Amino acid sequence: MELTLDATFAALAAPTRRAILARLAEGEATVMELAEPFAISQPAISKHLKVLEKAGMISTGHDAQRRPRRIEPAALEAASQWLERYREIWEANYARLDALLEILKQDAKKTRAKKREK
Amino acid sequence: MELTLDATFAALAAPTRRAILARLAEGEATVMELAEPFAISQPAISKHLKVLEKAGMISTGHDAQRRPRRIEPAALEAASQWLERYREIWEANYARLDALLEILKQDAKKTRAKKREK
Repeated sequence: MELTLDATFAALAAPTRRAILARLAEGEATVMELAEPFAISQPAISKHLKVLEKAGMISTGHDAQRRPRRIEPAALEAASQWLERYREIWEANYARLDALLEILKQDAKKTRAKKREK
Repeated sequence: MELTLDATFAALAAPTRRAILARLAEGEATVMELAEPFAISQPAISKHLKVLEKAGMISTGHDAQRRPRRIEPAALEAASQWLERYREIWEANYARLDALLEILKQDAKKTRAKKREK
């Protein structure tokens, strides 16, 4: 599990690989289709695909001619679940920010009220 | 944003750094406290902390003597949000699995019913 998370997070640390996953999220695609939107060569795309496949994040379909790649979501899900444990921390941060904004709003109201009194 | 995601995912691709974040999720801690559970030297821990700090994932508190580290959740949240877009895919996978299990269950029921008939 730890090893898989290592490979998954490392694979996610490159914009081209994230873009490939975003494309595959819409449906399976061939290497040529995946290479199309990028200004890099097909062998370079193939290298990125190998990293993703080794990390178990994509697989190759059975169509021998097209060899379409598709997303394997389990690794992405494990990574997402690992990050989820921190949700409490950032939600607590938002709660503090909300409280601060409320105080600032109340202060602004009081200042306006005082100005009207004068 | 893309650069931050690169740094965040790269920082997450090491078990020691993930363990440091897990410890800091419970509250701030000094370098000595963070090094304690690991069988590695304090300089090695400091190196990991530098990677996390450079990626904006932790910060150092103002106490000059203790210099406690604490989690900065924004980067983790961005990474989590990036992965969230794939939730639909893995949830669809579970739905397919559920449907398959339902079919298998129905088949098993029919087989049992047929056996009773004999």
